[in-house]
Amino acid sequence: MQNFSLAPDGREFNLPDEEQSRIEKEEVLKITEEQRKLGRKIVTVQGMGFVGCVMAIVIADAEDENGKPLYYVHGHQRPSNRSFWKVPVINTGIPPVSSSDAEVPEMFERCVNQKKNFRATWHDIAYEVADIVVVDIQLDATKPAFGEAEKGYCDITHFRDGMRTLGQHIKPDCLVLVETTVPPGTSQRIVKPIIEEEFVKRGIDIKKNPALVAHSYERVMPGAKYVSSIRDFWRVYSGVNDKSKTLARKFLSNVLNVENYPLTELDNTNASEMSKVMENSYRATNIALTLEWARFAEKIGVNIFNVRDAIRKRKGTHDNLLRPSLGVGGYCLTKDPVLANWAMKDVFEIDDTLAVAVNSVNINDTMPTHTVDLIKEEIPELRDVNVTVLGVSYLEDLGDTRHSPSYTLVRLLKENWAEVTCHDSYVEFWAEMETEKVYDDLDEVLPEAGVVIFAVGHAEYKNIEPAELVKKCGTKPLIIDCSNFLSDEKIKQYLNLGCKVKGVGKGHIKNL
Amino acid sequence: MQNFSLAPDGREFNLPDEEQSRIEKEEVLKITEEQRKLGRKIVTVQGMGFVGCVMAIVIADAEDENGKPLYYVHGHQRPSNRSFWKVPVINTGIPPVSSSDAEVPEMFERCVNQKKNFRATWHDIAYEVADIVVVDIQLDATKPAFGEAEKGYCDITHFRDGMRTLGQHIKPDCLVLVETTVPPGTSQRIVKPIIEEEFVKRGIDIKKNPALVAHSYERVMPGAKYVSSIRDFWRVYSGVNDKSKTLARKFLSNVLNVENYPLTELDNTNASEMSKVMENSYRATNIALTLEWARFAEKIGVNIFNVRDAIRKRKGTHDNLLRPSLGVGGYCLTKDPVLANWAMKDVFEIDDTLAVAVNSVNINDTMPTHTVDLIKEEIPELRDVNVTVLGVSYLEDLGDTRHSPSYTLVRLLKENWAEVTCHDSYVEFWAEMETEKVYDDLDEVLPEAGVVIFAVGHAEYKNIEPAELVKKCGTKPLIIDCSNFLSDEKIKQYLNLGCKVKGVGKGHIKNL
Repeated sequence: MQNFSLAPDGREFNLPDEEQSRIEKEEVLKITEEQRKLGRKIVTVQGMGFVGCVMAIVIADAEDENGKPLYYVHGHQRPSNRSFWKVPVINTGIPPVSSSDAEVPEMFERCVNQKKNFRATWHDIAYEVADIVVVDIQLDATKPAFGEAEKGYCDITHFRDGMRTLGQHIKPDCLVLVETTVPPGTSQRIVKPIIEEEFVKRGIDIKKNPALVAHSYERVMPGAKYVSSIRDFWRVYSGVNDKSKTLARKFLSNVLNVENYPLTELDNTNASEMSKVMENSYRATNIALTLEWARFAEKIGVNIFNVRDAIRKRKGTHDNLLRPSLGVGGYCLTKDPVLANWAMKDVFEIDDTLAVAVNSVNINDTMPTHTVDLIKEEIPELRDVNVTVLGVSYLEDLGDTRHSPSYTLVRLLKENWAEVTCHDSYVEFWAEMETEKVYDDLDEVLPEAGVVIFAVGHAEYKNIEPAELVKKCGTKPLIIDCSNFLSDEKIKQYLNLGCKVKGVGKGHIKNL
Repeated sequence: MQNFSLAPDGREFNLPDEEQSRIEKEEVLKITEEQRKLGRKIVTVQGMGFVGCVMAIVIADAEDENGKPLYYVHGHQRPSNRSFWKVPVINTGIPPVSSSDAEVPEMFERCVNQKKNFRATWHDIAYEVADIVVVDIQLDATKPAFGEAEKGYCDITHFRDGMRTLGQHIKPDCLVLVETTVPPGTSQRIVKPIIEEEFVKRGIDIKKNPALVAHSYERVMPGAKYVSSIRDFWRVYSGVNDKSKTLARKFLSNVLNVENYPLTELDNTNASEMSKVMENSYRATNIALTLEWARFAEKIGVNIFNVRDAIRKRKGTHDNLLRPSLGVGGYCLTKDPVLANWAMKDVFEIDDTLAVAVNSVNINDTMPTHTVDLIKEEIPELRDVNVTVLGVSYLEDLGDTRHSPSYTLVRLLKENWAEVTCHDSYVEFWAEMETEKVYDDLDEVLPEAGVVIFAVGHAEYKNIEPAELVKKCGTKPLIIDCSNFLSDEKIKQYLNLGCKVKGVGKGHIKNL
């Protein structure tokens, strides 16, 4: 096992040894003491991942009416090979995530180097000194079989370990605010009991000092409004008892823009946990519906995207209708219904199923097969056909590849023995498909293409002129438009250039 | 066979004989000639049903910039036993539908008796004189088995007959504007061919005079905004050729409030027909999702309605989320996905299925079983238990019972041998369940009740005080709240009075 952690920029950071650990502990204690003297509460954020590191700077950036920071923030990251590098990187004022949001580097610089009220640490002493711990540990669902989300489950071993660590270290009156998207029931049935079990071992009277556990979920969106989507947006919260609710309300009111986005308190943490996974299940179901109508539209000469626009005119009742596409990616819609369904059975032992939601995940996960079917309608045999995939991230103009539908697309094309070449200027390294080189130059991926798939709506792809693309190919490729990325004008140009064009939900192309 | 038609008020109207028919024909011709001299176009509305009769007065009420009527409207109603009475009733200025919208009787009075540019007739001569025919024939889906909507089909015999009648009578340049919700493909594949078949029989050259068929769907809502929901709302339209599109655009622009609700033109009638059934499928799917989460909420102490409110804070992306209830009623959400699924197979012969949409219809149709399950959790044996159902319509504060979920509820309760008594002040006669007396006095339905089901959210039920209800019962009935009609305050009062209370999606009751 290597004893260092490799940062994305290639730097190696040795994992801390005992001596460094002793020094770090003293450092955390010293800082904490200084900060308490300044009247600041101590917040430790558990997990410096995608949400945790930005939540940490949002908390550190919160000020009182005199412009003084309200909190000192310890950003806790376990000293693992995979992630320890975040600690030294953050402590130079550099964010451990790349983002198109200019606020992210600005706030890291401001809080780490100017206000000096945010610092990362790997040491668990950060939990002992905390008044509030914000839990941002990652929690995944596992779907063991493709298209069988009903078999999905949630391995909470790592999450439970994290909670046990808290129980072993936190002060009895410390608020534990769970921000991770968790299966409903987690705060009441997993977090609270584990912490109290450790409290009892430590001789703490849990009648007098029941664990103060609250839950509040974020609605973060990667992209240009990354920080704002955490700070300036509607928040739902609850707690396992009145005191935890009150503490959570005060804390969230201090750090979030509650003036414009007032908090919503729910009765109990089951409700706030359910709210998050239900809202994503709602989105997932909404998308699942669109695919079957897209297929219908393709057969009867209809452009489903125009139909969608017509329907969405009815604001408040119909404007949430989403669009068909290559498929559904990202971290939430692909797993949250599974978390909920698993919780129903495994956390609550209820003999029922969230069939609509889970079936929607299946439809969405397998949606890329439809794009492959579209290709096969024109080219039944894909063996050795050069297929160029434009876009492997799951969002337009972003490099986030988590659960990207392009992953499934590439896999299916390869199962058909196609020669696949992928392009995405936002993705240097495709973590989920390490063996697949992702090019950032269209000149490298287009020559000799038999099929060009517009998989993601990056502006670069929307802007490319048909004549230019066809020239680069040197062929008359089949053009596949996965989600209305090409205007009718452009489609006509491709047709005039001798290409065939097909699109998900774009049955009107045959009439152009 | 009786030779009269029975109006809801008990009056009998003899069906017209040959002599009356001759007189009526002359009358229609005379009126038409007079009206043409006034520069008015002639519109005939086919079908004086729920939409047709109000669409007719909206058209008749349309005026030019000088306040003069643009159109003369013949309201055509076939002389059937069931509906002929509408003709003489309308011609006295009385609407053939009851409504809480004051505009309805006002407009009938105004157009029939003052402007004198609307008159009902049973005579097909009204089609011969028309410049525009607006088709508002009813078209139903048949679901042969409960909970098996995938077996549903659309019997279009009657609709086809209507189109054939038009083909036999209309002028070659008459616009046929289909407003009925039809299976996608109907205008192109059914209406146009039938009309042209009749044109050919009449010696009309269909190359020069192809049938001018357009489609535009209404989004009518029964209730206080009945007229406005037709006139002042977003409209989608298209035509089978350019001329029919242009004529439809001009006509709709003249009669609807397009200044505030601009028209949306789609490529072809398949698209506009799909738009209507897809938007209702979207709503149906949205509701189907809520039931499984309501069941989950019930088991884990959560009030799903508060969760829904929290989710709906996200306007534009999440605020369409609907609520769980006794079930889904009305004319659209219960049949439109079936029409679409049937069209896919039977009109287009596509080997595919709209599984999400049709499955949603099944979930929604069978939803009342959940309310019965809630009762049985407390009272496993329902034989001879007095069950009072409050509300048999499908909408709050309205008497519309079409496809009401209370129908299924009552049926299921009777299958369990319960003694069911129904109340609804808005419903004098339950057409779909003729044998079931519907009371309008709570004093007649509450005494000795073992179960009281708040099935529909009529204000009368929301306002009743728990002490008063329990007193009227003389028992401590089980109270069932089907869709958040009772506040927590009222629920506590019922509990304090010794009643048990359960609610769809209201798992928090056990914590009250």
